[in-house]
Amino acid sequence: MNILDIISKVKHKQCLIKDEICFFIENYTNGNIPDYQMSSLLMAICLNSLTDCETYHLTMAMLESGKTIDLSGINGITIDKHSTGGVGDKTSLIIAPACAVCGVYVPKMSGRGLGHTGGTIDKLESIEGYRTSLEFEEFISIVNKTGFSIISQNENLCPADKKIYDLRNATGTVDSIPLIASSIMSKKLAVSADCILLDVKYGSGAFMKTRQEALKLAGLMESIGQMAGKKCRCDVTDMNSPLGMNVGNALEVREAVEILQGKNKGSLYNLCVQLTADMLELAGKGNNKECTEMAENAIDSGKALEKFRETIMLHGGNYKICDDVSLLPSAQYSYEVKAECDGIISEINSEEIGMTSLLLGAGRITKNQTLDMTAGIVFDCQKYDNVQKGDRIMTLYSSTISDFSEISRRALNSIKIM
Amino acid sequence: MNILDIISKVKHKQCLIKDEICFFIENYTNGNIPDYQMSSLLMAICLNSLTDCETYHLTMAMLESGKTIDLSGINGITIDKHSTGGVGDKTSLIIAPACAVCGVYVPKMSGRGLGHTGGTIDKLESIEGYRTSLEFEEFISIVNKTGFSIISQNENLCPADKKIYDLRNATGTVDSIPLIASSIMSKKLAVSADCILLDVKYGSGAFMKTRQEALKLAGLMESIGQMAGKKCRCDVTDMNSPLGMNVGNALEVREAVEILQGKNKGSLYNLCVQLTADMLELAGKGNNKECTEMAENAIDSGKALEKFRETIMLHGGNYKICDDVSLLPSAQYSYEVKAECDGIISEINSEEIGMTSLLLGAGRITKNQTLDMTAGIVFDCQKYDNVQKGDRIMTLYSSTISDFSEISRRALNSIKIM
Repeated sequence: MNILDIISKVKHKQCLIKDEICFFIENYTNGNIPDYQMSSLLMAICLNSLTDCETYHLTMAMLESGKTIDLSGINGITIDKHSTGGVGDKTSLIIAPACAVCGVYVPKMSGRGLGHTGGTIDKLESIEGYRTSLEFEEFISIVNKTGFSIISQNENLCPADKKIYDLRNATGTVDSIPLIASSIMSKKLAVSADCILLDVKYGSGAFMKTRQEALKLAGLMESIGQMAGKKCRCDVTDMNSPLGMNVGNALEVREAVEILQGKNKGSLYNLCVQLTADMLELAGKGNNKECTEMAENAIDSGKALEKFRETIMLHGGNYKICDDVSLLPSAQYSYEVKAECDGIISEINSEEIGMTSLLLGAGRITKNQTLDMTAGIVFDCQKYDNVQKGDRIMTLYSSTISDFSEISRRALNSIKIM
Repeated sequence: MNILDIISKVKHKQCLIKDEICFFIENYTNGNIPDYQMSSLLMAICLNSLTDCETYHLTMAMLESGKTIDLSGINGITIDKHSTGGVGDKTSLIIAPACAVCGVYVPKMSGRGLGHTGGTIDKLESIEGYRTSLEFEEFISIVNKTGFSIISQNENLCPADKKIYDLRNATGTVDSIPLIASSIMSKKLAVSADCILLDVKYGSGAFMKTRQEALKLAGLMESIGQMAGKKCRCDVTDMNSPLGMNVGNALEVREAVEILQGKNKGSLYNLCVQLTADMLELAGKGNNKECTEMAENAIDSGKALEKFRETIMLHGGNYKICDDVSLLPSAQYSYEVKAECDGIISEINSEEIGMTSLLLGAGRITKNQTLDMTAGIVFDCQKYDNVQKGDRIMTLYSSTISDFSEISRRALNSIKIM
């Protein structure tokens, strides 16, 4: 077996067998296959795709390249939730405690933000003292106590995926549905929860630009999950506009707490209820109607906020933010962006908003950049709202940038008023 | 301008502009773009192809990556001839002196064999004393004296092509018509002869397996030549069976001399007359009928042999082989392969014959391997000949292999008797 024959097969749209897929994953991970051969293969996969069965074998080969998590120490049914990445997506902070209230355990490992998309771990780190990196035993113990815990991804999971992901970023081979599906699913299967809910985003702020692509990715990931013997469901949701009113780390925690406090019943609340209900249903807690009611109750009763408070406390974080969001770090500088004409907001381009937030200090272009936890954007209006010239549309926040002249122009350009 | 945008354009079938093509060729040649990005781009080109115009710009960018040859010191019209590689292809040894007889100068730089295909330089080096590596002034002086000279390729021509060619070999990106066309044409344009005749082979022993692919490659290369302001013509010829009766370095020189001695008027003679006539016509020596007569006369009169003798002498080679082919090196061991049944020879697979010859010592799998100049195969019959069980079909020669049991089986399997 050799890599040139494997490249040639993909190039000529011939199906790879399991052994061939294991061969190139193993040998790329251990360094026997050089980057330049792997990138040629990745581009062939990008352009000629893989079958569902090949993608399943690819996922399993990447899964088997590293360790898996043993969740058997958790005293009940476990569920993992993953979003394919968005702007202003703080749903995990609301959903995980809501599920915990309903008796479903959420042992979650999250990532950091890169480019215009944010990451749950960065958001949690804006809470003073919150430790995102715990020993495994402590993680399991917190899940057993409160019903959920969110820590940063274990570096030993799926080393093949990590290496391939970096190469894809450097070789223009990111946007391939089988490669995206196997990357996500290998990491999710490595966590080995009983159920997996995937929130597949589409739109300007997402990897998948169209709903059709997102549906394809969703279908493929559900198949892989089922082939791997998991209860797996994908929801396909809109990321053309940012989620909720706040974008940026501490600002998003603030919005999540406000939802959990019952202060906000907008579209973000509705999405969180829907995703929580789907997770409860997947975990066998009832039909969708019953699960929707359970999800609403979990939030409306304040019980989810209580779970959130307990978990933050056990992570060493300042749990008082659950009662007083002004305890979250706040920005030194701010700037109000105002409408330049009358009309209806017909578009809020979430990719551009994500980039604006990044430039304010909330995100990173390359790994290991430090973040300004206070930076971000708070909207005063949403898509389809009526505005008049001079109305404040949003406020920009930063502790690192004080001259907002250029960034405010970019922020304004990301919005269309018709 | 950056390589990821260029990869993305090719991936999404958007047309590259000249500056983008120059950018990636320049930056890959000087090491700014790493192999793994280039191989991703090459695979995208393999699968999505390039337009004729993009391929022209690619050719010119590779041409401009190195030096070009100045042929202005030659006292007349010059023509270059190139074959896309075959088995038993010794036509250059016959055509170059034949053209020289007719007043068309042939300053030719040739390559070495690799894999199952032979190279003209290896063949010439089987002539005792023949120097294939000359100072440029001596090369021009020989061309002016005898009308032709064949030396090995200048290492300073098209460094971009050299680097890309090696990467293509290692990444499964060889069989792309725009990449093959730009590789050949950049090297041919760097030699800067007035006219270029390209012999595009198709069939089992050639890069292009079908006549249709060969026609596409031929059409593309003719367009590039014309866009570059050259008189350029491609002949598309059959390489399903080996050319002539002998395969292997000294054995092929022997056959070429026998053709020049007028001892052999078979299909090889006919092909040489046709290619010579096309070259003369391209150089403006008359219409095809006139040029065919000139080509026949050049060979039949013995004048081409005289030119060959003079050129070998000036290269320091043993020119007496032109009168006595037994002075060529001969093999220590030989083995007669006999027909195992009666019937008609319906196929002589030239790729398999090329590999058999390589295994006898006549070829190389990796660069820099030394060759057994005496090794090879001499056929007693051609395609469509009638044979009877026990008839000798071919004789295998080698000075390095004495046990022919396995190789003779391979040789026999390359032939179908029906």
